Amino acid sequence: MRLVTVAAAQLGPIQKNEPRTDVVRRMLALMDEAKRAEADLIVFPELALTTFFPRWYMEDPAEIDQWFEREMPSAATRPLFERAAEYGMGMYLGYAELTPDGRHFNSSVLADRTGAIVGKYRKVHLPGHAEFDPERAFQHLEKRYFEPGDLGFPVWRTMGGIFGMCICNDRRWPETYRVMGLQGVEMVLVGYNTPSINSQKSAEGPEQRLFHNRLSVQAGAYQNSTWVVAVAKAGIEDGFPMIGGSLIVNPDGEIMAEAKTEGDELVVHACDLDATTFGKTTIFDFARHRRIEHYGRICAQTGPTPPAL
Amino acid sequence: MRLVTVAAAQLGPIQKNEPRTDVVRRMLALMDEAKRAEADLIVFPELALTTFFPRWYMEDPAEIDQWFEREMPSAATRPLFERAAEYGMGMYLGYAELTPDGRHFNSSVLADRTGAIVGKYRKVHLPGHAEFDPERAFQHLEKRYFEPGDLGFPVWRTMGGIFGMCICNDRRWPETYRVMGLQGVEMVLVGYNTPSINSQKSAEGPEQRLFHNRLSVQAGAYQNSTWVVAVAKAGIEDGFPMIGGSLIVNPDGEIMAEAKTEGDELVVHACDLDATTFGKTTIFDFARHRRIEHYGRICAQTGPTPPAL
Repeated sequence: MRLVTVAAAQLGPIQKNEPRTDVVRRMLALMDEAKRAEADLIVFPELALTTFFPRWYMEDPAEIDQWFEREMPSAATRPLFERAAEYGMGMYLGYAELTPDGRHFNSSVLADRTGAIVGKYRKVHLPGHAEFDPERAFQHLEKRYFEPGDLGFPVWRTMGGIFGMCICNDRRWPETYRVMGLQGVEMVLVGYNTPSINSQKSAEGPEQRLFHNRLSVQAGAYQNSTWVVAVAKAGIEDGFPMIGGSLIVNPDGEIMAEAKTEGDELVVHACDLDATTFGKTTIFDFARHRRIEHYGRICAQTGPTPPAL
Repeated sequence: MRLVTVAAAQLGPIQKNEPRTDVVRRMLALMDEAKRAEADLIVFPELALTTFFPRWYMEDPAEIDQWFEREMPSAATRPLFERAAEYGMGMYLGYAELTPDGRHFNSSVLADRTGAIVGKYRKVHLPGHAEFDPERAFQHLEKRYFEPGDLGFPVWRTMGGIFGMCICNDRRWPETYRVMGLQGVEMVLVGYNTPSINSQKSAEGPEQRLFHNRLSVQAGAYQNSTWVVAVAKAGIEDGFPMIGGSLIVNPDGEIMAEAKTEGDELVVHACDLDATTFGKTTIFDFARHRRIEHYGRICAQTGPTPPAL
């Protein structure tokens, strides 16, 4: 047994005018609760420090940049790293990253039990659009405010296992999990902010959105025989509802724990990383079963090429 | 609306001594029922004409070859093609293929509404093992009796849409659906024979096996915005139980119809191929969202390469 007790730290809504210091106070409270639950690792959502600002159309660069962190840890977030170190607890934290040379990414970092950042990930699959879209019920401007991640899908050997990260929409893409699976990943951490209604199809409401969340995460876990920990920022932000449904899925694709609210809520499970071995050595023993000679299109073409009419 | 009414023609068990003529009679009865249901397309399981012979260890080539078809249609299967043509009904049929030059594949064919074979598929992801394994509760010798398919995952424009095929274990691999998704597939047809118990893990019984069947099929459908029709050979063959659970899944990943028995059973649904368009042009608009520069490992390496200890 290689037990890692994980606390999925779902956050309720963060309003547009809520300062980072208030949010960090809520996160520290969840961290205290995680310590009482003897967690080894706490996982916060995507863009955990602010409202989900890509729903707002902005043109002024200064207005945009106020949503980003210029360093990590920053003054506002340092208390999180310090308390995690004090507790001997690893941490996944999603935030908007502004680099010294002015690049913008939707990022996450992984800190080990000493509070040291051991890994960084930048969101590869940016959903939404880049320009104001009057056809949508609300905006989803991730392609406006972020560049696609340029770090790929690395994994890190830390905390006694092999960990990977991804962010929100990445979890719907099987390539995300597979690239990490091909590096032996044992636990994938993913934060998300997912509107409760499809902005382009009002009939697609929270039930179906939660279903797609579970389906994507469970399939990624099963098909790569890995744990997946998916953590929401949830509830009604600035009038716009987002799903909760944070969940911890085992390497058989089964849900072991799931959030019940759309508020700040801790979901804890003791995950045995050795449970990944059976699948990785039998039905998903990649070395014996994969046939890369037939996968060429996956890496060679971005869009579809249907057969001629 | 581009409606294709599909009949998933689940077969109950076929015992080792049951001749093909008897099986074809059962299949014709299902085809008659499909005609009454106004089906445009009937989908039979993997290795639909015989018992699932890879559970038996054999060494004698002549004994092995008796389970294979040397031509398609063959004398035994011609009535299926003739009746399908009479009914103006397309057909997917899984069978063991022995080529004129002595190669063995686990194959399927797709016939259009005139009964003409328009496509052939050879199973790429062969599960199991090649030599007798005394550790298993029962044998699963697909790697002994078949070569991996050499045709890739083509799709065909027929019956008013774009159709693809795969077989059994292929459905657990996201690469299967993605390669077809990258050719604009609108309906994937898959037959299977799945033991109700994991031969290497007796605690994994029919409930979990059905769960993995659904999960794989639903994820493949959702993530490529395609219909998937999955059809079992089910029930107790030669003392060995197999799951049923044949199902028809829509491009949102939702189960629209599912078998209730482990016997011969028809599951019918009118599938609108135009329902694939929304997903293909929004969240799974591959051309806008896929990032192939980060997928390289999927096509470059077969087995995993974990980070150094």
